[in-house]
Amino acid sequence: MNIIDGGICAAEGFTANGIHCGIRKNKSKKDLALIYSEVPAASCSVYTTNLVKGAPLIVTKKHLENGVAQAVICNSGNANTCNADGIFIAETMSEYASDALSIKADDVIVASTGVIGQKLDLTPIKNGMKELCSGLGNKSADAAEGIMTTDTALKEIAVSFEIGGTTCKIGGIAKGSGMIHPNMATMLVFITTDVNISREMLQKALSTDIQKTFNMVSIDGDTSTNDMVSIMANGMAGNKKITEEGADFAEFMKALNTVTVYLCRKIAGDGEGATKLLECVVTGAKTEQDAKKVSKSVICSSLFKAAMFGADANWGRVLCAAGYSGADIDVNKIDVYFASSKGTINVCKDGAGVDFSEETAKEILSEPEIIVKLELGDGQGEATAWGCDLTYDYVKINGDYRT
Amino acid sequence: MNIIDGGICAAEGFTANGIHCGIRKNKSKKDLALIYSEVPAASCSVYTTNLVKGAPLIVTKKHLENGVAQAVICNSGNANTCNADGIFIAETMSEYASDALSIKADDVIVASTGVIGQKLDLTPIKNGMKELCSGLGNKSADAAEGIMTTDTALKEIAVSFEIGGTTCKIGGIAKGSGMIHPNMATMLVFITTDVNISREMLQKALSTDIQKTFNMVSIDGDTSTNDMVSIMANGMAGNKKITEEGADFAEFMKALNTVTVYLCRKIAGDGEGATKLLECVVTGAKTEQDAKKVSKSVICSSLFKAAMFGADANWGRVLCAAGYSGADIDVNKIDVYFASSKGTINVCKDGAGVDFSEETAKEILSEPEIIVKLELGDGQGEATAWGCDLTYDYVKINGDYRT
Repeated sequence: MNIIDGGICAAEGFTANGIHCGIRKNKSKKDLALIYSEVPAASCSVYTTNLVKGAPLIVTKKHLENGVAQAVICNSGNANTCNADGIFIAETMSEYASDALSIKADDVIVASTGVIGQKLDLTPIKNGMKELCSGLGNKSADAAEGIMTTDTALKEIAVSFEIGGTTCKIGGIAKGSGMIHPNMATMLVFITTDVNISREMLQKALSTDIQKTFNMVSIDGDTSTNDMVSIMANGMAGNKKITEEGADFAEFMKALNTVTVYLCRKIAGDGEGATKLLECVVTGAKTEQDAKKVSKSVICSSLFKAAMFGADANWGRVLCAAGYSGADIDVNKIDVYFASSKGTINVCKDGAGVDFSEETAKEILSEPEIIVKLELGDGQGEATAWGCDLTYDYVKINGDYRT
Repeated sequence: MNIIDGGICAAEGFTANGIHCGIRKNKSKKDLALIYSEVPAASCSVYTTNLVKGAPLIVTKKHLENGVAQAVICNSGNANTCNADGIFIAETMSEYASDALSIKADDVIVASTGVIGQKLDLTPIKNGMKELCSGLGNKSADAAEGIMTTDTALKEIAVSFEIGGTTCKIGGIAKGSGMIHPNMATMLVFITTDVNISREMLQKALSTDIQKTFNMVSIDGDTSTNDMVSIMANGMAGNKKITEEGADFAEFMKALNTVTVYLCRKIAGDGEGATKLLECVVTGAKTEQDAKKVSKSVICSSLFKAAMFGADANWGRVLCAAGYSGADIDVNKIDVYFASSKGTINVCKDGAGVDFSEETAKEILSEPEIIVKLELGDGQGEATAWGCDLTYDYVKINGDYRT
């Protein structure tokens, strides 16, 4: 498997574009993105579990009932959520795209991200559609920019891999960066691949993968109303169609996981106001579920997040978060380590503090990527969760987001 | 019922004291508190549900097996948690107090609060015990100071009320102010009363009350390892002993609730770094449990908390938090209001935005006490939760708490 350029346009038959159409006031910010497949693609999505669901998700779910899509239209700057006429707006946005691309109306995935509860004006989208479609090309980065909200970094990746001697490609883009605490589905992530795969196996691959990837990311504990992960597989690589589990499916899962883990880390590291990517690795849990509970609980703890911002080896907060995680653990068996590119330090053994150099700990925790490792000593369950530190800037960004 | 002076010394037979003994480096900060009842008192506690429990809680639980206590000893500056010899330290602390006061060893409630995982040196406590005991008096405020950590305000209250023509008193002190997300029991709260009541009814009163009070407070979503609510009832008011439900028990519950709600509001408003007390009132829920889920979810949302810091009427975040609360709600029936001493404003009706004056909203949200009200329009369930805004100072305080 190789990491390659091209993002969501790396796979055969996919083009994309992103423009500023006028939803945002700032003209230097793109606010409309389009992804297009030359041929209809097997497609599926996973959605937020928030009972308050953005209108675009409801429309997309309907459109994907037949498991086929050919384009994604997505705006930023307005979430089209909690609006009385949200469904109409999402349907109309979708129609603009299907008309302009001459594809079937229900083959469009529609998404919106931004502020909740403000009416989305369709005029700029209508007016921008011609430029958006005519400019379609190898423009993954433009599309990635078009879906950004408070993200500070563009998030895209692609990999090539082989299935039965045939080269296949898969790529993805994502937006973070606040209101992120996935539950069953999350964030805005679009993945494209030219793999030939049945819609059933595609859904299976996505649903399995997100349990260990996007559902293990938390920025701020808030599960968004709007976010989803969509994948389109147009089959243009020409591999023998994947219709069941086996070596080919495993290869595809591996490539998919490379893309999703990369995007998870990017989303977590670019959390609102974040200065550090935090990774919590839990091993030795009674079950995988227990490991997941502990790792997510640590990653979500405001106190732990603030301590990491201050490069403070306050491991008591790690143990505290493990203790209230709901996992079945024996606190007297827990060892805790902090690690980064500067080394690894053991700070807690069998649930009690050990002497360690505060200076070394500070050096390790001053790096931009921190791993906190908990060895529970109680079984074989393992899990990893990703998050970010809690900073002044998180408060600043969210203290007055709407203005 | 009248609010009176005296705090935990208001009830007959109770004295208290608080001193600086040397656990904290800062000599101007008290770090040891004592509460004493002239006679043994019916007593019970509720404890954190965190699996990582502070050693003092384990010792207190053992001491309260017989339902009797006569004193509380509590230090701040060190939580005596996650230490290999924590139980020994807590037992020894307790013995210092029972020896000095000539009371039974197991009639002492022992508590500690502060940093986790650092060994608690008993020497300053031993050396301070004489000063602490000889200075016992009408010193509720000194004791309240002795249990403070990052609290900025002293938290004490007392009320007098009548039971069957007999005047009774109840008072309490509390400490907040971070790692606060009670679950079954929480924080450090000591309540004293001279009411004559059986230990069974006392436990019933406390366990019932905390469900609607301390368990509805959240500062930062972190459930502490150390916190508890203890009550001592020494019977010195001389009322006819309360041994069953009825008018007398109801009167006592009402007085207890006045004390606990007051302390909840104080704890929430003095959350780490907080500039505002937030109160979330939910009405019209299918059940009380649904109302509780919604109100706690809103109060815990980092995004909502940051918006309140910025006086930003971002009601979409309120709806979002209701949506992921796990409560059984119909989002299309929800009305949202913001209120303070400056007035009330309706910002959302039937789950969609309504036109409102941003200027008026800003004025309302700039007050130090904010109420966000959700009318769910779906039943009779009601609940109130308390919290605080998320500010730069929360991050500052917790970015380097240990130094």
